[in-house]
This record gives sequence, C-alpha cells and structure tokens, in this order.
Amino acid sequence: MFEKRTDLALEIRELHGEESGIDIEETEKNGITVTTANVNSSKGEELSGKPQGRYITLDVGKIWIAEPKRFELTAKTLADELESLLPKGEGCVLAVGMGNEQITPDSLGPRTVKKLLITRHIKKIDSALYTSAGFGCLSAIAPGVLGQTGIETAEIIKNVVNGIKPKCVILIDALASRRLSRLATTVQISDRGINPGSGVSNKRAELSEKVFGVPVISIGVPTVVDAATLAYDILEEHHGKEDSDFAQVIEKILSSEGRNMFVTPKDNDIIAQKTANLLACAINMAVHKMDIKEISEYID
Amino acid sequence: MFEKRTDLALEIRELHGEESGIDIEETEKNGITVTTANVNSSKGEELSGKPQGRYITLDVGKIWIAEPKRFELTAKTLADELESLLPKGEGCVLAVGMGNEQITPDSLGPRTVKKLLITRHIKKIDSALYTSAGFGCLSAIAPGVLGQTGIETAEIIKNVVNGIKPKCVILIDALASRRLSRLATTVQISDRGINPGSGVSNKRAELSEKVFGVPVISIGVPTVVDAATLAYDILEEHHGKEDSDFAQVIEKILSSEGRNMFVTPKDNDIIAQKTANLLACAINMAVHKMDIKEISEYID
Amino acid sequence: MFEKRTDLALEIRELHGEESGIDIEETEKNGITVTTANVNSSKGEELSGKPQGRYITLDVGKIWIAEPKRFELTAKTLADELESLLPKGEGCVLAVGMGNEQITPDSLGPRTVKKLLITRHIKKIDSALYTSAGFGCLSAIAPGVLGQTGIETAEIIKNVVNGIKPKCVILIDALASRRLSRLATTVQISDRGINPGSGVSNKRAELSEKVFGVPVISIGVPTVVDAATLAYDILEEHHGKEDSDFAQVIEKILSSEGRNMFVTPKDNDIIAQKTANLLACAINMAVHKMDIKEISEYID
Amino acid sequence: MFEKRTDLALEIRELHGEESGIDIEETEKNGITVTTANVNSSKGEELSGKPQGRYITLDVGKIWIAEPKRFELTAKTLADELESLLPKGEGCVLAVGMGNEQITPDSLGPRTVKKLLITRHIKKIDSALYTSAGFGCLSAIAPGVLGQTGIETAEIIKNVVNGIKPKCVILIDALASRRLSRLATTVQISDRGINPGSGVSNKRAELSEKVFGVPVISIGVPTVVDAATLAYDILEEHHGKEDSDFAQVIEKILSSEGRNMFVTPKDNDIIAQKTANLLACAINMAVHKMDIKEISEYID
Repeated sequence: MFEKRTDLALEIRELHGEESGIDIEETEKNGITVTTANVNSSKGEELSGKPQGRYITLDVGKIWIAEPKRFELTAKTLADELESLLPKGEGCVLAVGMGNEQITPDSLGPRTVKKLLITRHIKKIDSALYTSAGFGCLSAIAPGVLGQTGIETAEIIKNVVNGIKPKCVILIDALASRRLSRLATTVQISDRGINPGSGVSNKRAELSEKVFGVPVISIGVPTVVDAATLAYDILEEHHGKEDSDFAQVIEKILSSEGRNMFVTPKDNDIIAQKTANLLACAINMAVHKMDIKEISEYID
Repeated sequence: MFEKRTDLALEIRELHGEESGIDIEETEKNGITVTTANVNSSKGEELSGKPQGRYITLDVGKIWIAEPKRFELTAKTLADELESLLPKGEGCVLAVGMGNEQITPDSLGPRTVKKLLITRHIKKIDSALYTSAGFGCLSAIAPGVLGQTGIETAEIIKNVVNGIKPKCVILIDALASRRLSRLATTVQISDRGINPGSGVSNKRAELSEKVFGVPVISIGVPTVVDAATLAYDILEEHHGKEDSDFAQVIEKILSSEGRNMFVTPKDNDIIAQKTANLLACAINMAVHKMDIKEISEYID
Repeated sequence: MFEKRTDLALEIRELHGEESGIDIEETEKNGITVTTANVNSSKGEELSGKPQGRYITLDVGKIWIAEPKRFELTAKTLADELESLLPKGEGCVLAVGMGNEQITPDSLGPRTVKKLLITRHIKKIDSALYTSAGFGCLSAIAPGVLGQTGIETAEIIKNVVNGIKPKCVILIDALASRRLSRLATTVQISDRGINPGSGVSNKRAELSEKVFGVPVISIGVPTVVDAATLAYDILEEHHGKEDSDFAQVIEKILSSEGRNMFVTPKDNDIIAQKTANLLACAINMAVHKMDIKEISEYID
Repeated sequence: MFEKRTDLALEIRELHGEESGIDIEETEKNGITVTTANVNSSKGEELSGKPQGRYITLDVGKIWIAEPKRFELTAKTLADELESLLPKGEGCVLAVGMGNEQITPDSLGPRTVKKLLITRHIKKIDSALYTSAGFGCLSAIAPGVLGQTGIETAEIIKNVVNGIKPKCVILIDALASRRLSRLATTVQISDRGINPGSGVSNKRAELSEKVFGVPVISIGVPTVVDAATLAYDILEEHHGKEDSDFAQVIEKILSSEGRNMFVTPKDNDIIAQKTANLLACAINMAVHKMDIKEISEYID
C-alpha cells in the first residue's frame, strides 16, 4: 500500500482514525484551535509509527497576512504551549535550526535561529546578568544539512549537547503535511523530538531525549506536500476509493522522482520569513520573560 | 476547458499537435537534441497563444550531475545557439535576471547575472579595451519582482533600455513546464522575449522587441510545474480521457490555491545554481570570445 | 593640500569654520541634538564644495545598543524631519537603496529597502486602497553598483524616474565621515541629493533634482572613515599642526592604496542592520501614517 | 608598551628580529616567495608569543586580479604545502570555516567551506567509492561566531571532533596583519592551529592539537589591519621612533574604539570571494587527487 507522507500526528489520526493508536483532544485558546494528539502506549507507537509523546497542533491560519494583533496573540499562545514543555530551573536552552537555508521551504529552521536573542555567552560570565530585565539563557546552532557538511545533523547536535550540556534542546524544522491547506497555517509542537524520515530534507536518524540525553522539544511548520502523496489524494478523490493502478499512473506521471518532488506555495519566501518570525517570537518569549514588543525591538 | 500551463513552445505543440500552429524541426548538435519550434503566421500565433518567432529547445539532461566534459560541451552548444541570435556589430548587450532571488526555483535569473563578466563600464572608457583578449560589451541588471519594488519589471527594463540603448536584451527567467521530467533538463532560447503570464512569478506585461525597441532574446529553464496542471495530467492518465468532474476534484484537493502552488524538486538549490552557471557560461561565451576555461576563472 | 574626506556638511563646517560658507543652527528635539547646516549662496557652494541646500544632522548615539524606547523616539524624530522635506499631495515616493550589498558597511541602502513597506503596485490598482489604514504610496529599487551592472547608478535611477514619475526620490546611502566617533551615531538628511565622490562606493555622477527632474532627498549614515584621512588626523594631532612631510609618511605606510582603504567598526554587521532598520522605520513612518509598532509588525 | 597586532609569524619576526625567537627560511616555489617561520623552543615560544610550530607564508600577490594561469599555479603551490602537512593514511579531514559570514572581511572561512567538495557522507557508505576518480574524504562545518550561537567556537569544534574523530582539522580563518600591503596578498599555513586573540573576530580560546586531540592545520589570509596598529605605525614613521605620547594621540583620535576598528580595502567583497576560491581550490586539491580544472567544475 502507498504510504501517505505526513509529519503531523493530527493527519495520521485523520488517515487512520481510532485505529491509529492516537488519542485526540481539542480545545480553543485565544481563539486558536489547539489539538493535542497523544501517543500513550507502545501499541499506539506501533500503530501510528510515531514515538510515544504529545503532539500539540495549533491552527494559526494564514499568519503571513494576519493583522499585528492576531500575530501577537498567536505568538503568545505558542509561547505558552512551549513554556509548559520547557524544564524548569537552572540551565540553558539550545535551539537548533534544522534544514537547508538555500531551499526556501526548508529554510524555516535557520531563519528562526537568526531571530533568536542569544544570551548564553553573557550568562556564562555571570548567570545573574540581565535576569531582572527578563533574560533567560539561550544558545543556538544551525548545523546545515548532510550534503553541505558530510556529517549527519543528529551527530553534530549530539556532540554539541554532550559538550555544553543544555537543560533541553528545541529543534526547529520545516515539515511535510498531507494537505495543502495546512501549509504554513499549522504549528506542531512536540515533546518527542524528530523521527527518521521527517522534515523537508528527510532526516535519517532519530533526534530525541533517548539519543541526546536531555529533553528534546520540537517545533515545526509544514511547508511542503510530497508530490506523490498529493497525486494519490487526487486520484482517490476522483475514483472514490483506492485503486490498484494508482501506483502505475503516479509512476508514469511523476516517474521515479515522485518522492523527490514537493508542492509548495508560490510566495513561500514571505511565508517562510513570517513563520520564522512567529516561531522566533514564541521561543524568545518562552525563554526570556518579555512581551513581544520588547522582544521585537531587540531583534533585527 | 482547463488550460494546462506551460512556457515551452515544444509542450504546446505536444498538447495540440499540428493544430497548435507550431512547426517543429529536430536536429542533434554535439549529442544534444535541439528542437526548433517556429510560429510563422498570425494564424499560428492565434492557435498557439505564442507570438511569432523561433523557440529553440535543448534537451540538456541532468546537467547538475553531468561530468565536466559534458557540462562544457552543453555550454558551448548553448553559446552557439545564443550567438546566432545576437545582433552583429557595435553596441552592448543588456542581460536581465528576472525573478525573485528569495524563492529558490525563481532565483535562476538573479543567480545567472551574478556570474556574468560585466564590461560595459570599462568599454565606455575605451571601447577597444581588452577587445584583443576577447572581451565584448556586457551589462546586467536584476530588477527584482513587483512585490519588492512596487514597479512592473517590464517598466524598469524598458526605462533602462531607453536610457542606455543596448544593441539587444537577453532576458533570463525560470519557466513553468507541464512535465516534471523536463524540470532543469531543458533550456529554451527564443528570439521573441517573454509573454504575459509566463515564468514562475507570472509576468503581467509583454517583454519583447515591440515594447523595448531593440531585439529581445529570452533564455529560460523550467524549474516548476503548476500544481493544478500536474493534478489534471494525473487524472487524465488514470481516467483515459478528460472528464467533466476533474475541475471539482482539483478544486477540492488543491482548494482555490492550485494555481498558486507549484511542484519542484527537493534539491532545487543545487539545480538552480548549476543551471545558473550553465546559462552564465553560455552568455559569457556568446558575448565574450573566450572558451569556458578562461571564462570560469574570471568568475567566482 | 591634503583634502580630508567627509560626506557630512557638519564636518566641513568643523574643518573650515565660518569660512566654509556653511551656516549652522543647533536645536534639540526629543533629547536628540539636531544640527542644520545651510549652504545658502553660490559663494557658500564654492567655498564648501557642497551644493546649496539644507543638511540636517541628527546625533542619534549608539543606536545599535539603544533601549527600545530610545530607538522608537529616534525613529519618530527622523520620520518628522523626513516628512517635513517630502512634497505634499498626490504621487508616489521612490526609495533607492544605493551601495553594494556584499560589502557590509556599504550595504546600508540595500538593507533599508528590504524593510520598506512597498505599496505602489497596490495603489496603482486603486489609489484609495488602504488609505484609511494609513498607507501612502511607496516604491523602491536597489540598483546595485557600477562593477555589478556596468551601468552608472545615476543612469539607472534617472531612467526609472523618467518612466514612473514619482513625486520625489529618497536616496539611502552609506557615507564617509572624518571622525570615527560619528560612525553609525549620526544620520544626515538633505534636500540636495548626493554629490559626485560621495558614499562608500564613490558615486561618479550627481544625483539631484537638477538631474532627475523631481525633488531628491538623501538620507545617509556614516559607516566608514577614509584611511588616509584618519592617518592625516592622527599626524596632525601629534604634530600640533599640518606638516609638509605628512603626505610622504602616509604614502609610505598606506602606499598608493590609502584612498582605497577604509576604517570601520568590527561589529559592522549588527550596526549596518540596526541602522537600516532605523532608516526603514523612519521612511515607513514618513510615507505611511502609522506608528512604529504597526510598521514593525508589517515588516519581517 | 603598545603591542602591535598581527597574526603573521613573519611580521613578529620583522618587528623583533632575531630576538623574536623565530627562525626564518625563504625559498621560491613556482615563482612564489615561500617563507617558513619556525618557533622551535619553549624560549622561542615565550619570546614570540606564538606556540612552537611551522608558519609557512606564501606571498601570492594580488590574486583577485591574477591571470587564470597564475591563479592555478598559486592554488597548486598552496595545495602542495597543505598536502605536506596532512597526515597520511585512512581517515577524514574536517574543514572548519571560522568567522562571521555577515562581515565581509571576516567571511573568508564560511565562504571557503561553501566551495569544498564534501564527500564524507558518501565515503561512509563505502570508503572505496569514487576513490579511483580521486576523491578523498572531506567534511566541513561553519560554526558561526560567539555572538550568533552563545557557544565558544572552540567548544563546538572540539565536540564535533570528539564525535566524528577526523584524522585532522583544517581551520580556515581571516587574519589581522600589521601591513596594509599584506592584505589579501599573503597566505599563512601553520601546523599549530590558532591562538587566543587571533583572527578578525578575536578567538578567546586556543584551537590546537592539544585541545582537539588530532593534528590541527590552520590556513588564513590577512583581511584587516587593526586601526590602532596602523595609527601607531604612522606616528612612528613620522616621528622616527616611538614616543611616549603616541598612546594619548591614538586615544584622542580613535577614542576607546581603536581596538574595535579595522582597516580594510574597499573592494573587499571581490577580494574575500576570490581568496576563498583560492583556499577552497587548494584544500580540494590537497584532499582529493584532482587538478584545478576537474575541481572547479564540480563546484558551483
């Protein structure tokens, strides 16, 4: 059977319903629909293909054309969710901007870390410095992708984590969704890091607390739909149900490249930058105790 | 009827056959298939939707993984085709890198002009300078896109042309193809400039000799397929023929965004850069009388 | 005699006193020292080497480490000065980001235009659109430098102005100062455009109302000190007065490259970006009727 | 006493002569003057402030305006020197592009690694792959600077080295010279890594075999002169000898910022890119067994 590609727990649940092993809870915060997908058991893990953990999805709408007020409220809502996952107490946060800055829809991670308010080097001099002004301890790297470094991203992160021992890691990554309508309108936050095969540039190794030895939070936004998944959905919609010759049609039209092609919006530069700003605002607000106005004026 | 989007004259001919009003000629040069599509009459113009002129298509294959030798031969073949279209005699060439540098598959034009060997400012001092070394007269602009400047690209080019009076304009642009297999494997050169609605960022005005008052050559490479066109082709392949409910299916899956989404290869950063290098080599070789080795060492 | 290089009218006055032909007026606005240097007569023009006009200098301090409140107040003060120079009534403003984006201290212009809220293409559809929300009509180009285009910057601007007929031009450029202490701490606004020989990349042609046919406002920040000028000032400070062998010393140490070298702060990337943000805020606030908070959330 | 800043062992020798504890040897290779400065004893180490090791300086001239032939010969000469320092046998090389990509004269390292032919990820699949075509095993990172990451560069490198265990590290960095005439015309290769206080962005920790546990080669090009050092040299040249009031003069003119200002050529974007190409060619040729033509066509 053709496996529809998605990095969203929410969509796995939509695809397979209760049999997905994923429990769903929906609430509304500040007018934003927040869906929490829980994978609770090893059975759920097996059924869903997602490791046990919480996957929180916020339906943020077309944030790149949102009024300033709505942008601010969305950033605050995200910051609150993120803060609830951050370990309390001493220690620094390490943010990791995953992905390839040279490919617009994969540039979300590197763009986000450029907008973070980095303080670890100042805090190392004196951890109380600027604390009264609200500053927490934040560090960040953008490790590049395998083709640029020759080194697995997971390996770089693990080694840096071993060296600087942050209290937790926040992975920022561009995701693949199954639905065009979710592109750039959805944010997924998870306490379970990133699976092999995820993201636009298809990570090959697990990135999680098990591997890194510290809590790993991931925050991502779908920016692409896999071309073969789109093709499959179109055929299914037309035919009414799955058909055995879909694979052949897709093979003919997409050739062998179907899994190496993606669908993405035309104005994805504006979307990528605005989404990166949103995530950076949320991370800055969660780590530093400041409101969006203070944050935005410390950042270029 | 649904109009399949393509900027390639070759594909219009494929879609509509002889009724397209396009005459086709195929030859082989240096092992590369060169297809010349001619729109000869106003009848042909009407049928094809393409203005009268020659549209030369070179099937260059996966140039981004080609051996150095094949890259060199391809650049030389392109340079020869280009040179045959350049007006002889005195005067400078103005190269225009169309498109949005921030969107990877639309960045072909701006990336190409960065690799050109610009000489107009030196030639203005003394037009004989460096002529013996092979240098012709080349200038270039990358005017940006409407959303960045607030000014139609056609307007910027027309005004610069009016001012500096080049002997011809070479427009470099990323194109839309109908077929995924043609992405980055095809180069189209034309003596007819660019039509409204063409290119990744959808020009709104005609860019041609009629508008600019000097010969306009365009050179482009398809880097995207329109998502709705892909969807349509997939349905047609499966259903065997066009069906009246295709539009509804596409509307449902792509929603209203189908024409604002495109399909593109994952490694489009490498492809865009390598393709830009190819076009820049060809333009440099056509304008300056140098071989690829000399050219490549003058350029970073 | 050695000519000390500066683009600031204020510094010409400092160098030559009343004999400079420049009248000086100093006030304070919002805690910022605002110095207006007037060149009123053709005699003053001859003496100062500056065309007749007003040159307003704001001493904004180290804006790149300023508290948000002070940044906001400074932007507002600049916006007010700028607005007082903008022609009233219908018509669009054309902002021009001068300089080379690839050279950090020369990148002020291109960085600034990237942060402008461009509206001309929307206003062309219906000039009343968004007016109630405060939006004026703004367009922008970043024409690049001579070595990149082969075309004089003045020529590109003039041709675009001829074509789109803006109500005025705002030139944004990085300047040379005589004093290191003025680097990035001073903004000069003028109603007289830019002289030949000015700016980091040394424009060769006049850019003014006389040449473009519409009012030309320039706004600039010194980001470099000419190395030879610095050397001269150091020698003079030590020797107490000018000495005939200075030139020889400078020639020996700076060799023939003295005028092709500049002095600039180490953290000039942060300074360039923060200064660009300041100018962009001021231009956005002057053209659109919005406060800094609204503006900053429309911009990435 | 005022300490003149330089990262070149050659200039320390010039400043202090034989008392510098540095032995000098000069030869000529392919028409290029190659000076080897040896610090042989702990006494030499103390006197020179440079750790024991070999510092090879090549006087490459104005490489950014060199004829292709001379560029090629220079790259080959550099590659030979570099190869003589590389450990033989199995294992991968880790290249590290030090410095801040956003500051033109500090961008040498990051620009260089972008032009490297990365193969480690392919060699990991099968170390014999492409060996017959000449490919060795190369990986690379550009770790950013302290202000961007909050993490000492030395710490990031050390942790990655611990993880991937390369056979050696090549550090690529922009240096400070004492002489304007050496800017971009000199390459220094050393088997002793980088000292605290070196480079444009002033590293704070030692980067050497002692710290990393594997051989550390550094390759650098001076791109800046410290403004205070230039001022001092100018005063000394004029006064004939050191004077006690130099410090006061420099303090007055440079204020407290003298050590935070640098002197750099105006066209430093072209220089930085061409120099990065030179270093990348040399590293590619030293690690992979290919000539410059093969290398240059694998790289964009």
